[in-house]
Amino acid sequence: MSDPITYAREHQADYLAELIDFLRIPSISTQPERKAETAAAAQWLADKLAQAGLENVAIIPTQRHPLVYADWLHAGDAPTVLIYGHYDVQPAEPLALWESPPFEPTVRDDYLYARGSSDDKGQVYVHVKAVEAILKNNGRLPVNVKFIVEGEEESGGESLAAFIPQNTEMLAADLALVSDTAMVSAQQPAIVYGLRGLCYAFIDIEGPKRDLHSGSFGGGINNPLNVLGHIIARLKDEDGRVLIPGFYDRVRPLSQQERTILAQFPLDEAAWLAETGAPEPWGEPEFTLVERLGARPTLDVHGIIGGYTGEGAKTVLPSKVHAKVSMRLVPDQDHEEIGRLLKAYIAELAPPSVHVEVTVGHGAAASITNFNIPAMQAAAQAYATAFGQEPVFMREGGSIPVVSAFQSHLGVETVLMGFGLPSDQIHAPNERFYLPNFYRGIETSIHFLQNLG
Amino acid sequence: MSDPITYAREHQADYLAELIDFLRIPSISTQPERKAETAAAAQWLADKLAQAGLENVAIIPTQRHPLVYADWLHAGDAPTVLIYGHYDVQPAEPLALWESPPFEPTVRDDYLYARGSSDDKGQVYVHVKAVEAILKNNGRLPVNVKFIVEGEEESGGESLAAFIPQNTEMLAADLALVSDTAMVSAQQPAIVYGLRGLCYAFIDIEGPKRDLHSGSFGGGINNPLNVLGHIIARLKDEDGRVLIPGFYDRVRPLSQQERTILAQFPLDEAAWLAETGAPEPWGEPEFTLVERLGARPTLDVHGIIGGYTGEGAKTVLPSKVHAKVSMRLVPDQDHEEIGRLLKAYIAELAPPSVHVEVTVGHGAAASITNFNIPAMQAAAQAYATAFGQEPVFMREGGSIPVVSAFQSHLGVETVLMGFGLPSDQIHAPNERFYLPNFYRGIETSIHFLQNLG
Repeated sequence: MSDPITYAREHQADYLAELIDFLRIPSISTQPERKAETAAAAQWLADKLAQAGLENVAIIPTQRHPLVYADWLHAGDAPTVLIYGHYDVQPAEPLALWESPPFEPTVRDDYLYARGSSDDKGQVYVHVKAVEAILKNNGRLPVNVKFIVEGEEESGGESLAAFIPQNTEMLAADLALVSDTAMVSAQQPAIVYGLRGLCYAFIDIEGPKRDLHSGSFGGGINNPLNVLGHIIARLKDEDGRVLIPGFYDRVRPLSQQERTILAQFPLDEAAWLAETGAPEPWGEPEFTLVERLGARPTLDVHGIIGGYTGEGAKTVLPSKVHAKVSMRLVPDQDHEEIGRLLKAYIAELAPPSVHVEVTVGHGAAASITNFNIPAMQAAAQAYATAFGQEPVFMREGGSIPVVSAFQSHLGVETVLMGFGLPSDQIHAPNERFYLPNFYRGIETSIHFLQNLG
Repeated sequence: MSDPITYAREHQADYLAELIDFLRIPSISTQPERKAETAAAAQWLADKLAQAGLENVAIIPTQRHPLVYADWLHAGDAPTVLIYGHYDVQPAEPLALWESPPFEPTVRDDYLYARGSSDDKGQVYVHVKAVEAILKNNGRLPVNVKFIVEGEEESGGESLAAFIPQNTEMLAADLALVSDTAMVSAQQPAIVYGLRGLCYAFIDIEGPKRDLHSGSFGGGINNPLNVLGHIIARLKDEDGRVLIPGFYDRVRPLSQQERTILAQFPLDEAAWLAETGAPEPWGEPEFTLVERLGARPTLDVHGIIGGYTGEGAKTVLPSKVHAKVSMRLVPDQDHEEIGRLLKAYIAELAPPSVHVEVTVGHGAAASITNFNIPAMQAAAQAYATAFGQEPVFMREGGSIPVVSAFQSHLGVETVLMGFGLPSDQIHAPNERFYLPNFYRGIETSIHFLQNLG
């Protein structure tokens, strides 16, 4: 028998082939018509966990998409690591912009292109293979391990959020490990210690009960699309400040120490901007770009549909319009309170000439992990060994709702060990995963578990 | 031989069957994929004009959709009437809201449901059948008649706009007759003496070159949908005043005399509102509803599409968004100048963090017809005979671009003899034509031509 690292290197081709299988399954949790495929992804993953040598493998039904659980608990007094990931993926639209179909994984250069390749199937599979490599070589793990993998991360994560407080014994651990974030670059690993929270909402505006001719009725009936414009303009000003009354009330001010740490973050602003293709960075002028991206709350409109959206012109005064909006939150904003503030504010803005309805969707608390705990050092050392480069510590702009649930219900801190890249195009067409990171990620995970043991 | 009125009454069933044939053709001029069907509608109409006894029937090719011409010029010194209409129709989307398919004409109660039934195939066909009824009975018409029917009214009418100034002799007439407007109610005919103009524009905003994850990039990159909201909010205020600098500069003030006439217009505001289904009327507080609908300019957003528009949530920061906007204009606003003002204003509003492009589309001048000319009295008398009710004079909010072209290039005034109803749902699902108006319209047209002769 060789050692786990050598074993993992020898099996890279198998691991890639398996990941490709996993990515073929369109487990889009937000789309009800994909319910069967989402369940199929859970089953596929459960099978792989069992083949890896994990025990007590379970597919736990929920009100929506199942949870996948597995453990290996024979390491005695060694710490218990709860490994979390998600097997569901974002919708793939707009399909026309994909260079290869989103659910036909394709390797080009060193990248594996597919929806979910980086977010999060590729990253969660890193740990499945790391555990397998250790078990197949050593017959045992240096730590106790529990896997909990959900299928609703991209659609609110409500089932897991409800499951955690009711199953604190089953999920009890000393530490959580999550790989659902990005490194700074292929050369520069990063450990995320702060995550933004989220409050998602839907705005529906109804004016006339049917589409009207704007010539006959324009000027006499209010237009839901014009109203929507006024509402959006009042949600966030042109400098990026959210205008919802009370929105900033609970924002924990950035300490001078943290601003100093964030100022040292090696962001190549020109390269970052080039990656986005936007004309220039933008946002609250009193904060740096790094602060705005990870440590400041914001608000974005994600989608609008209303009126005539076909080619050419149509002079319609639309009956109903729809918008999707979310706010990224920071400690100590409360996502439920923010949802109530948004609802109350829009109710105030809504003119009596239309009906406006705000539906608050899923939410997540922001979180900050203490980066002085020993596990953080074990993670940093694992990265340094596998990548030949010490990781930097950073705050991430995205939301991983489960991290704050682990903090509050299980009392455990989470190590966010990301293997994605900022250029992975997650949530967008042509999502990809940098394959050297997949293989080095497996090695990092092996080192990490061994460092902890 | 009977008289033309009796003849027309005896042939109502035939006329309806023919109109249903006409309405089966999906001649949607804005949709390039409907080019062949649009041409087929022109051919169908040309055949019917020839069968009606008209001469010199021609299908005149243009850069887009053909014009249909026909005449009968044997009335010597009697006046020449130029009858205009359009054989193209609006898009039928949203299809799901039609109770019967838009291009499968269906009679329910006294209504004929189909896209184009009222706007404008049904109304233009009124005059084809009126002329036919006179010719078949009397062997001659009391006046000279020219038909010019276009296929681009719903998509800008550029081909006819270019054709008129180059063919002033061919189209020379003493009077134009257009049926493309609505009566007040089934009992109350109306002659429109004023029409609003139009300036249509498309707004495209591009931010990042690809869709971004709003968690990773939100707060650091400007969002085209948020920018669009700010732009829309600055185009028209919440009371209905257009905010484009210079927009109102050329608006001809409403005289006290005209405000008095408009105040007498028999609009049943409650019934009108119930028809729209909107919670309340709305618009510039310093003008009455009748004034706002016909005699004041306005601005409406007709469609927005951008970001994720599928079901559920997606946290995308979209790359490209699109909006369609138009302004209804009144004398003496110039639609080309208004297009330039809009473009310049939006260029000023556009932040450097996104690319904003405004494309000015089709336009039309507003028009007012002198209602003291004898033809207006002949039309009023024809309505009184056919409907048993004197018509009222009104200004209409819609645009019929050709009317001002007839004024400026041919020097002729237009009699706008409408047979539609406000509840016809033109430009919307379930467009319909009130069949008693189809038959009475034919009689009104017969009386009108005879009154002129």
